[in-house]
Amino acid sequence: MKKTFENLSALLTDDLNAVNALITQRMASKHAPRIPEVTAHLVEAGGKRLRPLLTLASAKMCGYGGPYHVHLAATVEFIHTATLLHDDVVDESNMRRGRKTANLLWDNKSSILVGDYLFSRSFQLMVETGSLRVLDILANASATIAEGEVLQLTAAQDTNTTEEIYFQVIRGKTAALFAAATEVGGVIASAPENVVSALNTYGDALGISFQIVDDLLDYGGADQTLGKNIGDDFRERKLTLPVIKAIEKANKAERAFWDRTIANGDQHDGDLEHAMELLQNHGALEETRDAAIFWGNRAKTSLDVLPQSQIRDLMRDLADFVVNRAV
Amino acid sequence: MKKTFENLSALLTDDLNAVNALITQRMASKHAPRIPEVTAHLVEAGGKRLRPLLTLASAKMCGYGGPYHVHLAATVEFIHTATLLHDDVVDESNMRRGRKTANLLWDNKSSILVGDYLFSRSFQLMVETGSLRVLDILANASATIAEGEVLQLTAAQDTNTTEEIYFQVIRGKTAALFAAATEVGGVIASAPENVVSALNTYGDALGISFQIVDDLLDYGGADQTLGKNIGDDFRERKLTLPVIKAIEKANKAERAFWDRTIANGDQHDGDLEHAMELLQNHGALEETRDAAIFWGNRAKTSLDVLPQSQIRDLMRDLADFVVNRAV
Repeated sequence: MKKTFENLSALLTDDLNAVNALITQRMASKHAPRIPEVTAHLVEAGGKRLRPLLTLASAKMCGYGGPYHVHLAATVEFIHTATLLHDDVVDESNMRRGRKTANLLWDNKSSILVGDYLFSRSFQLMVETGSLRVLDILANASATIAEGEVLQLTAAQDTNTTEEIYFQVIRGKTAALFAAATEVGGVIASAPENVVSALNTYGDALGISFQIVDDLLDYGGADQTLGKNIGDDFRERKLTLPVIKAIEKANKAERAFWDRTIANGDQHDGDLEHAMELLQNHGALEETRDAAIFWGNRAKTSLDVLPQSQIRDLMRDLADFVVNRAV
Repeated sequence: MKKTFENLSALLTDDLNAVNALITQRMASKHAPRIPEVTAHLVEAGGKRLRPLLTLASAKMCGYGGPYHVHLAATVEFIHTATLLHDDVVDESNMRRGRKTANLLWDNKSSILVGDYLFSRSFQLMVETGSLRVLDILANASATIAEGEVLQLTAAQDTNTTEEIYFQVIRGKTAALFAAATEVGGVIASAPENVVSALNTYGDALGISFQIVDDLLDYGGADQTLGKNIGDDFRERKLTLPVIKAIEKANKAERAFWDRTIANGDQHDGDLEHAMELLQNHGALEETRDAAIFWGNRAKTSLDVLPQSQIRDLMRDLADFVVNRAV
């Protein structure tokens, strides 16, 4: 992943610098210094800038020569940052990317209101592009993101959660913004309809694959490598794909185990190890990995409608590397 | 106030019904029933629908015949509702409009995420109007609202707060959305520039007047009528215009009193009564009432650029009635 990012970033250095400058400029506030303080903590925390990179790469791949892909990349990063600020309040998180969260360093109030401010700043940035179609795409993505968050809240800890609900949740949580990020890159470049559609499919599939891999790695990946943070989702009683697949095949005693630990939150020493055993016995981790590979391939093949280019190859590589984190 | 509302509402009955139908339709969510539950609690709680009424009235006064003033009125109500949901979390409020708040009935998480959902729905609604200028106005209003909220958070309990900061805060808290609500009514009706500008001035001044009166009534109004809820702002240590004016004129002992009660939050029996005495002694309540009258008059005279009509008269009356709550 690192190498693909470096290559993509190197190809888009000037654009990325322009995005960073625009982000710094727009997170300023003459009246409320708390805003840039909180935002800088998160924006400068070494995030991967994956989403803005997708917008820049999509626009460049479609031959865009104007200035607005930079606005859209900053828009996408602001939406992402605002979502993280609100997520950390909702999840009562203390750490993100190895640093204390804003809700811990300042307070929940600041995280809520600065998140709202970044949403409104992202909105201003996209209006500046003057493209109603771009606004339509991003408005719909915002609604899908917010609906997915509420769905996740109500579906959490419910052991009847189906794969269908899981996919709705991760489309909201991750794939909707990935898909909008790539699609608006094509739209701003006035790419033909089949290319715009392919970019949407690419972002959607890449986002789904990305989230499935994240959820798989939380259980150590398909080979159950035990590392730090293994089992966070289990302890937080999140219904992710590995557990959903294991519950699908659970016998009565196993179902009782999941109900006790996930639905009722009654967890003891040894429960995580037993959960890992059940995932292994039912092949849930391999099946989850296969799902990630399926969506990764879908992302790759969606780009077949575009002519070969260095940047297209790098975007295909990106899909491989997202999946390879998990194998 | 009640009579003016009734007359304005009666004149716009069909439009208001259309707004209510659109709100009900757009607060639905196929996947997350929590969304309409929380929204309905707030939207159906007998709010005055003042903001959507301003949009409908402005569009009608400018002779608009299309369908999009209804979308914009619903947009404005969704932005307002989203702001209330987040405000109640930030202020840790338990009651609003005589009912338990959503953060109490459900939880903070639901209020944060449903608020985000309503923001994104409002965004979709305004995109549907196809007017980039409307989007620009509402994006700027959203940023002013969010910046004002953060400013209020950091200015709260600071006895050095100036009138200048107070006006920035209430522009964000109240006047920015009032001004956008009336301005977009004119824009969607393709009104001439001087009329659009007048509508912005009207909404801004009406909003400022409205908020000043609210802050004055919290201390019983200019005649210090003691009723229920008197002194809420004092107990919550909010720096509003009456107190700012009293602090401007405070001697050393009085300044120490405000520092103890507001800055340090060390309040005892008799402190509210002493605060009321200081407001009275320095004429702070009369001065605050005069400020409300000034802004109310400004709202009224701004409409002079428009030809006389029944609806223009009612909008002028509205400014009088807003102020009359305080005299």
